[in-house]
Amino acid sequence: MPTKYYIIYIQIVFFLHLRYGQAQVLYDFTAEPGNGELTVKEGETITITNQSIGGGWIEARNSHGETGLVPEEYVEVSVCVSQSCVPMLCSIVAVTAMDDDEWDDEWDDTRSSACYAEVDLEAAEEGATNRTEVQGPTRKITLNKFPGFSKSGPELYLLAKMLPKGKEKISMGEVGPVWLYPEVQMECLVADPKKGSKMYGLKSYIEYQVTPSTTNRPVNHRYKHFDWLYERLLEKYGSAIPIPSLPDKQVTGRFDEDFIKLRMERLQSWMSRMCRHPIVSNSEVLQLFLNHQDEKDWKLGKRKAEKDETVGVMIFSQIEAEAPELGLDEVERKCESFSRFTKAMDDKVKDLLAVGHDHWKRCTGPLPKQYQKIAKAFQNLSTVFSSSGYQGESTLTDALTATGKTYEEIATIISEQPKKDLHFLVETNLEYKGILGCFPETITVHKAAIDKLKDADKLVATNKISPHDKPVMAKRVSNMSYALQAEMNHFHSNRIHDYNRVMQFYLEEQVKLYETIAGKLRAALQQYTTL
Amino acid sequence: MPTKYYIIYIQIVFFLHLRYGQAQVLYDFTAEPGNGELTVKEGETITITNQSIGGGWIEARNSHGETGLVPEEYVEVSVCVSQSCVPMLCSIVAVTAMDDDEWDDEWDDTRSSACYAEVDLEAAEEGATNRTEVQGPTRKITLNKFPGFSKSGPELYLLAKMLPKGKEKISMGEVGPVWLYPEVQMECLVADPKKGSKMYGLKSYIEYQVTPSTTNRPVNHRYKHFDWLYERLLEKYGSAIPIPSLPDKQVTGRFDEDFIKLRMERLQSWMSRMCRHPIVSNSEVLQLFLNHQDEKDWKLGKRKAEKDETVGVMIFSQIEAEAPELGLDEVERKCESFSRFTKAMDDKVKDLLAVGHDHWKRCTGPLPKQYQKIAKAFQNLSTVFSSSGYQGESTLTDALTATGKTYEEIATIISEQPKKDLHFLVETNLEYKGILGCFPETITVHKAAIDKLKDADKLVATNKISPHDKPVMAKRVSNMSYALQAEMNHFHSNRIHDYNRVMQFYLEEQVKLYETIAGKLRAALQQYTTL
Repeated sequence: MPTKYYIIYIQIVFFLHLRYGQAQVLYDFTAEPGNGELTVKEGETITITNQSIGGGWIEARNSHGETGLVPEEYVEVSVCVSQSCVPMLCSIVAVTAMDDDEWDDEWDDTRSSACYAEVDLEAAEEGATNRTEVQGPTRKITLNKFPGFSKSGPELYLLAKMLPKGKEKISMGEVGPVWLYPEVQMECLVADPKKGSKMYGLKSYIEYQVTPSTTNRPVNHRYKHFDWLYERLLEKYGSAIPIPSLPDKQVTGRFDEDFIKLRMERLQSWMSRMCRHPIVSNSEVLQLFLNHQDEKDWKLGKRKAEKDETVGVMIFSQIEAEAPELGLDEVERKCESFSRFTKAMDDKVKDLLAVGHDHWKRCTGPLPKQYQKIAKAFQNLSTVFSSSGYQGESTLTDALTATGKTYEEIATIISEQPKKDLHFLVETNLEYKGILGCFPETITVHKAAIDKLKDADKLVATNKISPHDKPVMAKRVSNMSYALQAEMNHFHSNRIHDYNRVMQFYLEEQVKLYETIAGKLRAALQQYTTL
Repeated sequence: MPTKYYIIYIQIVFFLHLRYGQAQVLYDFTAEPGNGELTVKEGETITITNQSIGGGWIEARNSHGETGLVPEEYVEVSVCVSQSCVPMLCSIVAVTAMDDDEWDDEWDDTRSSACYAEVDLEAAEEGATNRTEVQGPTRKITLNKFPGFSKSGPELYLLAKMLPKGKEKISMGEVGPVWLYPEVQMECLVADPKKGSKMYGLKSYIEYQVTPSTTNRPVNHRYKHFDWLYERLLEKYGSAIPIPSLPDKQVTGRFDEDFIKLRMERLQSWMSRMCRHPIVSNSEVLQLFLNHQDEKDWKLGKRKAEKDETVGVMIFSQIEAEAPELGLDEVERKCESFSRFTKAMDDKVKDLLAVGHDHWKRCTGPLPKQYQKIAKAFQNLSTVFSSSGYQGESTLTDALTATGKTYEEIATIISEQPKKDLHFLVETNLEYKGILGCFPETITVHKAAIDKLKDADKLVATNKISPHDKPVMAKRVSNMSYALQAEMNHFHSNRIHDYNRVMQFYLEEQVKLYETIAGKLRAALQQYTTL
């Protein structure tokens, strides 16, 4: 499903690009004479005439009709949608709706991220700038879910003018750079799924009760609210912190009990992970999600969050390492090793998942069947024996029947075991697969920054940047590296904790399993007359 | 293999029939005038002119050249082989030799049962009658291994003239008719297989040491000696007592250690079963096999055994039940129920064997592979983790490695388990499959006797038997029924004992298996840092 959803999303975006090639200039760019470049000013709106120039350049026309090349990283593709195209957008939405109720559901009141026309209106009401309206689509494009479309490079941060002092501090712990952890770690409980409905019961949905340990006051949220939270966190922190996807959307059986149970369990793990993260747990948007007072409070908070401009790479502007600047090669070495590790772990986690899947199938399929056959064979023998008409038969036949029953029980025990232990092992590894899936993008951003720094001299020489930009870039790349290291250390400590826990749980359950089976067989054995 | 060997045997027999259609008259038959029958006298030699008359009749010519029909049950097909045909026989033997050394081996000095010409000579020396010489082939034909060829019906016994008092007594036990069991049950140990050779090492074979508990004096025997014993016991007792086949002959790898071990084990079970049988253990031929003093003693004993005339149905003449004569319907009812039971048990034993075979394959194939994969997955994860460069990693990585090792061990344990327990369960059931395979023939003989008794009036009316034969037949059918019942009771008590033992053994081993696995997993669990 999600793939389809994205594909259709991209379609929308494409269609918008083709029809409205508008772009916002993010910061000043002075054309180099004789290079066919176009000088633009921050805030200016230009029309893209050719997006497929390549080499990081696009062709654009300014309001005066002048055309020339502009670095694509210096502009943000924008979409100004008139009422006229709303029906068409909705029709596209309708397409998705056909295969995913809930996705349709997602749209029904998240106007700001979906139905641009309304944003227009609201935006107007709230006197929002043009930029606000277009965040929906553009941000979607910058999400690391489709790297191919990433339009915002590290320059946004590396070359940003005067930044406020970062509020997220990184200190040096014994394992190296570490985030500042709160005294008490926030937890939250996702529980008590309830079926709700709206539009006079035409639309129904599941609502979960989310209770943060901080307030102990429950708030109700639907899957789509979690999804909204996910999108916000991804936008805001995705470049620095892996924000794993939510459990997949589901086309059918959304009200099936097992599905609800599994989804709740996964939402719980996801929320716990977010709450366990010192930066994320501290974020306004998560606080809003957990602590909003009422519907109005929630809606207002949503709007505010959606207007947050410190997203993408700009998150690094809020991070500050209290440590000496790192040399480029040190930065590169760290980046390489993290890249290697996360890639390697990703492979092994996937292997483990494949093995786990196999084992699950065997334990719920052939293996219990085998034990049922054994059971049947013993029981049939017992039946024949009892027909012998020979006296003094009963002890043996009773024992054989009991043995048969025992093997039937063993078959059941074995087939139900994976739900008990393998499930948790698989879920944990699925979670890590999700987290590890976020690193490539984080590392790409990081490498892009490193490359930019390497190009600094060339950029200065070609007047792309001013000479005093270079040390600033170097400082900020170092800062990014501290952020990456802090995040890796956070990842490692969580990983060690999580795998310790899951392995212990799995082994405990396996020990119980084999002891139970041994016990049952011993009981069956005692039924025979000792010779 | 055995099939092939029988086929070729049958070829020999056929060829002999075609070339020398000689037959011995077993007892007087008076032709009914005008029926085209031929009057013959016991001991007379006749030539079979047409064997395919059907309806239990053959066409024969007597020494005076008179031709007519004779009941086929009244004659025994005989073979008088002249020197001339010996080469041809040997060439046939050579054919078999090509695919079975040992079978070839079987022949190399068992002249009396193989190389008729020599029998001729020896027979002559020993002044044996024509009848002696022909026992080899004719007996072979009467073996229940090829029911199609069975020429000796129950009449042989039912209508036999004056019989000596049977030495094998049947008394009434609490379970019904039972054999007379000896005070002490003989046991014998088959052990210490040694490679021997003859013909200056051109022929080599395996010799087993067989030690009966009675004398505690070991004798050496080759497989072919066991096979000879089997043939004798089958001939002599086959109609009344199931004599299971020996472990199959083997074409290749006869000197392979595992094969020798398995064959010895199976010879042991077979010998134990023979020794455990009150009638068989008491037999001259078994005593000879276990207690002969030297080679000469052995050879002489063999000749004597091969000349034993109380074989086939005549064994019933040696059995005497000290109990009131049984009515025909009682006899029939018993026969039916035994037939039903043995058939049903045969089916279930075969099912159990199929399941056992499946389980064996799974336990030595997919299952350990699965556990090896799990082991590898954990070990690989451990390897990646240890490459993290994060400190405080080692406890987890060591524990993960240990867990991996544990699952490797479990894989090995599981794949070696079948040899420990399933093997015995399978072997016992194979043994019972063998025994149960003998009952159909026993029951066929029994039913044939019942049918003959039912036909008695008709036979009297048509002068096939004299009126006073009928009560004799009834008495003997009753005697046969007592024998069958005694044997069934013997079978049942053995069965209960054997299955009790094998099931206990299997379950004990299974309990150990699961406890061992649980123990190993518990040890692995303890390696993790408790949270």
